[in-house]
Amino acid sequence: LTLSSKLRVGVIGAGRIGAIHAENLAGRVPGAEVAAIADIHLPAAEALAARLNVPAAAAEYQSMLADPTIQAVIICSSTDTHARLIEAAAAAGKHIFCEKPIDFDLGRTDRALAAAAQAGVKLQIGFNRRFDPNFRKAREVVAAGKIGAPHLLRITSRDPAPPPLEYIKVSGGIFLDMAIHDFDMARYLMDSEVVEVFATGAVLVDPAIGEVGDVDTAVTVLRFANGAIGAIDNSRRAVYGYDQRVEVFGSAGVVAISNNAADNAVVSDAQGVHAGLPLYFFLERYAESYAAEMQAFVTAVREDLTPPVSGAAGRAAMVIGLAAKKSLAENRPVRVDAAL
Amino acid sequence: LTLSSKLRVGVIGAGRIGAIHAENLAGRVPGAEVAAIADIHLPAAEALAARLNVPAAAAEYQSMLADPTIQAVIICSSTDTHARLIEAAAAAGKHIFCEKPIDFDLGRTDRALAAAAQAGVKLQIGFNRRFDPNFRKAREVVAAGKIGAPHLLRITSRDPAPPPLEYIKVSGGIFLDMAIHDFDMARYLMDSEVVEVFATGAVLVDPAIGEVGDVDTAVTVLRFANGAIGAIDNSRRAVYGYDQRVEVFGSAGVVAISNNAADNAVVSDAQGVHAGLPLYFFLERYAESYAAEMQAFVTAVREDLTPPVSGAAGRAAMVIGLAAKKSLAENRPVRVDAAL
Amino acid sequence: LTLSSKLRVGVIGAGRIGAIHAENLAGRVPGAEVAAIADIHLPAAEALAARLNVPAAAAEYQSMLADPTIQAVIICSSTDTHARLIEAAAAAGKHIFCEKPIDFDLGRTDRALAAAAQAGVKLQIGFNRRFDPNFRKAREVVAAGKIGAPHLLRITSRDPAPPPLEYIKVSGGIFLDMAIHDFDMARYLMDSEVVEVFATGAVLVDPAIGEVGDVDTAVTVLRFANGAIGAIDNSRRAVYGYDQRVEVFGSAGVVAISNNAADNAVVSDAQGVHAGLPLYFFLERYAESYAAEMQAFVTAVREDLTPPVSGAAGRAAMVIGLAAKKSLAENRPVRVDAAL
Amino acid sequence: LTLSSKLRVGVIGAGRIGAIHAENLAGRVPGAEVAAIADIHLPAAEALAARLNVPAAAAEYQSMLADPTIQAVIICSSTDTHARLIEAAAAAGKHIFCEKPIDFDLGRTDRALAAAAQAGVKLQIGFNRRFDPNFRKAREVVAAGKIGAPHLLRITSRDPAPPPLEYIKVSGGIFLDMAIHDFDMARYLMDSEVVEVFATGAVLVDPAIGEVGDVDTAVTVLRFANGAIGAIDNSRRAVYGYDQRVEVFGSAGVVAISNNAADNAVVSDAQGVHAGLPLYFFLERYAESYAAEMQAFVTAVREDLTPPVSGAAGRAAMVIGLAAKKSLAENRPVRVDAAL
Repeated sequence: LTLSSKLRVGVIGAGRIGAIHAENLAGRVPGAEVAAIADIHLPAAEALAARLNVPAAAAEYQSMLADPTIQAVIICSSTDTHARLIEAAAAAGKHIFCEKPIDFDLGRTDRALAAAAQAGVKLQIGFNRRFDPNFRKAREVVAAGKIGAPHLLRITSRDPAPPPLEYIKVSGGIFLDMAIHDFDMARYLMDSEVVEVFATGAVLVDPAIGEVGDVDTAVTVLRFANGAIGAIDNSRRAVYGYDQRVEVFGSAGVVAISNNAADNAVVSDAQGVHAGLPLYFFLERYAESYAAEMQAFVTAVREDLTPPVSGAAGRAAMVIGLAAKKSLAENRPVRVDAAL
Repeated sequence: LTLSSKLRVGVIGAGRIGAIHAENLAGRVPGAEVAAIADIHLPAAEALAARLNVPAAAAEYQSMLADPTIQAVIICSSTDTHARLIEAAAAAGKHIFCEKPIDFDLGRTDRALAAAAQAGVKLQIGFNRRFDPNFRKAREVVAAGKIGAPHLLRITSRDPAPPPLEYIKVSGGIFLDMAIHDFDMARYLMDSEVVEVFATGAVLVDPAIGEVGDVDTAVTVLRFANGAIGAIDNSRRAVYGYDQRVEVFGSAGVVAISNNAADNAVVSDAQGVHAGLPLYFFLERYAESYAAEMQAFVTAVREDLTPPVSGAAGRAAMVIGLAAKKSLAENRPVRVDAAL
Repeated sequence: LTLSSKLRVGVIGAGRIGAIHAENLAGRVPGAEVAAIADIHLPAAEALAARLNVPAAAAEYQSMLADPTIQAVIICSSTDTHARLIEAAAAAGKHIFCEKPIDFDLGRTDRALAAAAQAGVKLQIGFNRRFDPNFRKAREVVAAGKIGAPHLLRITSRDPAPPPLEYIKVSGGIFLDMAIHDFDMARYLMDSEVVEVFATGAVLVDPAIGEVGDVDTAVTVLRFANGAIGAIDNSRRAVYGYDQRVEVFGSAGVVAISNNAADNAVVSDAQGVHAGLPLYFFLERYAESYAAEMQAFVTAVREDLTPPVSGAAGRAAMVIGLAAKKSLAENRPVRVDAAL
Repeated sequence: LTLSSKLRVGVIGAGRIGAIHAENLAGRVPGAEVAAIADIHLPAAEALAARLNVPAAAAEYQSMLADPTIQAVIICSSTDTHARLIEAAAAAGKHIFCEKPIDFDLGRTDRALAAAAQAGVKLQIGFNRRFDPNFRKAREVVAAGKIGAPHLLRITSRDPAPPPLEYIKVSGGIFLDMAIHDFDMARYLMDSEVVEVFATGAVLVDPAIGEVGDVDTAVTVLRFANGAIGAIDNSRRAVYGYDQRVEVFGSAGVVAISNNAADNAVVSDAQGVHAGLPLYFFLERYAESYAAEMQAFVTAVREDLTPPVSGAAGRAAMVIGLAAKKSLAENRPVRVDAAL
C-alpha cells in the first residue's frame, strides 16, 4: 500500500456524522484520505478540514465532484439532499457512501438508485450497526445454522434521550428515523424479507412528541417470508442509556446480544451488586462500527467488490418503515408490498 | 401452631400437578395436611395416598365434600370439570384452590365464580408463576416505582417440548393453554388491565400442530389501560430448555428476569465459555413457586385473608386468551371487551 | 419404602445446626424420622421436639443411646463433646453423623475414629458444602477431566459478619473454625492431599478479634501432592453477604462457581445496573446442601453404603487447619505431616 | 493544535511492542508524530518507517538523539539496553518512555533513574495495564473509598501460551517478566507499598521451562504496608485465552474486574449456554491501553505534567519481583526491603 494509491474521498456534510466519517477516513482507515470537505455552512467545513489537515473546504459540493482526483464521496448532508446528491455524484462518476435514509419518497429513491446503477458506481448505505462486532457475530451464528431455522426475532432498541422536536418534525417519525435501523437489522439477521408489519405506538415519554404527530414508544411485529416472526420495541428515552439488544431464536437454539458498557467493573456493597450503565448513545456504542463501515466501503471501491450494504437494502428498510407508519395509523397489519 | 389446628385439605385429581400440590401440602406447607385424595382413576388416588401417608383415597369427590372435617379442596382434575367442581365445593362450604383455566366458556366461568362468592368460600386460581421469587421481585420493583411509570413489557415464554397432540386438541390452543400464564403475568407485573390484543402465529415446530388447528410459535402484542405496550413471544419448543423471562421498562429504568439453572458453574475451555442450560421445565423451574402458592392458599384460609390470585384474575387471563385467539384468526387487533 | 422401615434417628444438640438437621430429617428426608432430641439445656430440646412432633426430649443423651429402636445419632453439640459422643455412640452401636470439627486434639480425634471403626458403625462428618449443587458440579467437572490436570485452585470464603467473641475464643480460630470448610473443599475438588501450607493473616475487621488471639482476614496457600497450588482468602466480614466462590484451573480449562442470590432480577436505572446481594449466610446459601447431606447419611445407613464424607476427611481438614495455624504463628510454610 | 506543534518522537526498537507504539503515535495519538525509527536490524526499522510514512529509519539511535527537532524517545529495544538508552537519551535532553523492566540490576536501574532526574527530562515506564478501562475503573472505585479500607487483593493473570524458551532464559523468569505487571497492578490498585512477599511455584505446563530454571505456575502472596493481603496466581498457559482479572475487597465492599471478549453473543443450544473466549492475548486485550498510555505520555510532555507511571514505579515492581524470586528459591516469606 503506497501513499499514491490512497483512495481520495470527499465528505459532504460536516455535521456530527460527517465528522465521524471524516475522522475515521483520516485516522483509522488505511487506504483512504479525505481530499475535501463540503458543507453549506462553510465555517463547519473549514473547521473540520483544519482539524483533520484536509486541504480543501467549500460551501458547495460541485467543485468536489469536478475534481478528477477524487474517486468517492460520503454523503452526510440532510436527508432531503441525499437523492439529489447521489444522482449528481453518479453523474460525475464518483463512488458513493450515503447515510440512511436515501429519501422519504420511494420514487426519488428509485431514481437515485437507478442513477448509481446506470453510472456503474458503487453505492453503500449507512446502516452502520451491521458492522458492530456483536451483531455481526449474531448474524454469523444464524448464517452458520447454529440456531437452526429462525423462528423468532426480538429487537430492543431504545435511545437514551429523544432528539430535538425540530428534528422529529422532519425526521419522518420514529419508524423512518429510528426503527429503520432495526428494520435493516431484522433483514440482516434473518436473511429473509419482511412481508407484513403490525405497528403500535404510544406517547409516554413526552407529550410534545405526540403534538407533532409522532409516537415515542412503539412495538412492531414483523412477518418474514420464511415464516418467522419478529417483535421490535422502541423507546425514545431509556434513562439507563442506549439499549441495543437482539435475539434470534430458532429450531436448534438461540443467540442473544446484550449491551456494551464502558468497563466491566462490578461493585458489591451493602446495598447490592452494581455494574456500569450501557454506553450512552450511538457515538459510543457504535464507534467501532462506524470505522469498520468506512473500511468496508473503501475496500469495496479499491478492490472492486460489491459494497456490503446495497441501495436496495436502504430502500427495503424504508419500505418496512412506511408500512409500519401506515399500520400505526390504521391499527391493522399492513403487507409490505402494499405500503408503496 | 398445634397439630390439631392443621387445615385439612382434599386433593381432587392425582395426576402430575395434583401430586405436586399434595406433596407440598404433606411435606412443605406447615399448617396443612392432606386428608383425602380423589381421582376418577382410583389406583392413581390410592398410589398417591399411600406414598404420602394420606388416610383416604376415592374414585369420587363427593365423600370428600361430605366430610365436615375437610375445610378446603385443591382442584387438579381435567379442565372440563373445574367449573362444576367449584360449584359443588362451594355448595359444600369448602374453600377452593383451582388450577387454571377455570373453564373455556365464560358463562360457565361466571357461574362458578358467582357460586364461590355466594357461598362465601375462598377461591384461589393456580397461577403459580406469581409465587416465583424472580417474578415476585420484578413485581415488587415495579410496584415500588423503581422503574417509574411502565412503558413496555416483554415476556419470553418458551416450552422445552410440545405437549402430546391429544392434549393440544383439547387444550384450547397455545393462547388458552400456554400463553394464559403470560397473560396473567402481564396483569400481575403491570397492575393494569389489557384493553387490546394483537396476536400472530406460525407453525414452525411441528406441522402436526397446525393440522389440529393450532400454532406453535406466536407473538402477542398487548395494549394496557395505562397506555403501556407489551410483547409476548411463545414457542412450543426451545431445545435449550424452559425459557421464562420478563422485562418491564419504564420512565425511570428497567427490571429484567432471566432463567434459572441447576447450578452456576461456568467452564472455560479451548472452545468457549460454557454454562448449564435453564432448568428443563415447569416442574423444575417452578418447584418453589408451587410450594409458595400452596402456602399462600393455606395461610389465606387459616388467617381469613383474601387469596392472592382471585377468580377474577383467572377470568381476566382467559378473556385475554380468547381475544388473542380471535386476533390470530382474523389477523387484526381485537379489543378485549369485544372478545366476549 | 414403608413407614415401618424408616430410620429412627436421635439428634444431640438442639441449637441452630441441630435444628436444621432435625427439620430436614422430619420434613425433607424420606426414609428417616426423628425419634428423640437431646440437649443439656432441656427447654431447647423440648421446644424443638414439640415443633417437629418428636416424641422424646431429654437433657442427656444416654437414654437415646440406650433405646434399641434408634439406629443413628446426629451429633450437633459443642465441639468439645464430639469425640466423647462419637465413642459413646459407637459403643452403643449407633451410626453417627457428627458436625465438624471432630476435636481440636488429634489424639482424641484418632481415638474417636478408631472407636467408630472398631464398632463397625458408619461415621459421616458435617462438611455440608460438598452437597451444594454448585460445588458438586465443579467437582464433577474436575473429576471428569474437563479442565485437564488441575494446576491452580482459588477459594474465596468470606462470612457476612463475625461470630460472637465468646465463640471465637473457643472456636480454635479462623483456620479451625471457618477455613476448615475450605480445606475440606480443597481436598474434595482437587482429589489430592495437601502437603504444605503457608498462611498469613491480619486483624482488619475488628481489633477485639486480635485481642483474643485470632485474625479476621487470611490468605492460605496450599501445595498439593499432585503438584497443584491453591490460594484461599478468608474474611470474617463481607458487607455484601456470604461470599463463597471456587475456581479450579487446569491444563484444559477452568471451572468457576459464583454466589447464589435470592432472585436474578436486574434493575437498570439512571445510576447503574443493579442485582441483588448474595444469599446472606450459610443457613440460606447451604439450605439445600444440609438437606442433601442428611439424605446422603440416611441413604448410606439404610443401603449400607460408605458415607460420602469419612472420619478421615474430617481429620485431614483439621490437620491442614493446624498446619495453617502453625504457619501463621511462625510466618513460614509448614509441611502438613509436620503439623501433628 | 497545529501541525507545527506536534511532539516529534523517535522510536527505538521496531519489534512487536515498538510497532504498536509507533502505530498509535502515528494514527491514534493527536499531538504527536513519529519522526524517526531505529532498530539494530535496519530492515525492521525501514519496513516500519515505510508502513507508517515515517521519514527517517536507522540502525543506530545516536542520530535520533542528535536531532534537535526530536523531543522524546520511546525505548522498546531489548531489556539489556534500557538503562543505557535512558542515560543516553537523558544526556541528550529527550523525554523518555521506556518499556518495563528498566533493568534486572538495581544499581543500573538507579543510575538510569538518577540520570533522567538530573537531566530534568520526563520518564514514563510501560505499565500499560494501568490504562486499561477496567483496571482504571477498579482503581477509581478503590480510591473513591467505595469499598472502604482495602483488606484483600486477588489477581489472576494467566497467559494463553508460554513465550519461546529462548525468551524465558533471558527474561528474568516468571516473576520479573510476567508477574511484574501484576506487582505494578497491585501497587496501583492498593495505593500502598508491598512490604513482604511469599512466592511458590511449580512446573506444570512444560517441563522444558523447569529445565531452564523457571516455573510456569505460581502463587504469590503480598503483604501491604496498610495491612492488606494480596494473592496473585499466574500460569503461562490458559487454553481459553488471556485471563486477566482483579478483585479488591474491603471493609465496605468489593470491586471485581472480569475478562473482555471480542463480542458478547451468547448462544444457547441443546448442549449448553455458550459465550466467546476472552480476547486472546495482550495485543488484543490491551490495544486500548497501549494507545491511552502513549496519549498520556505525549500529554505529560506537551503540558509539562508528571507522567502517570514514574521510574520509581518501575523500580518498585522490579524489587517485588526480586523478592518473589528469592522467596521461591528459599521457600519462605521475604521482606521487600531485604530483597535488594
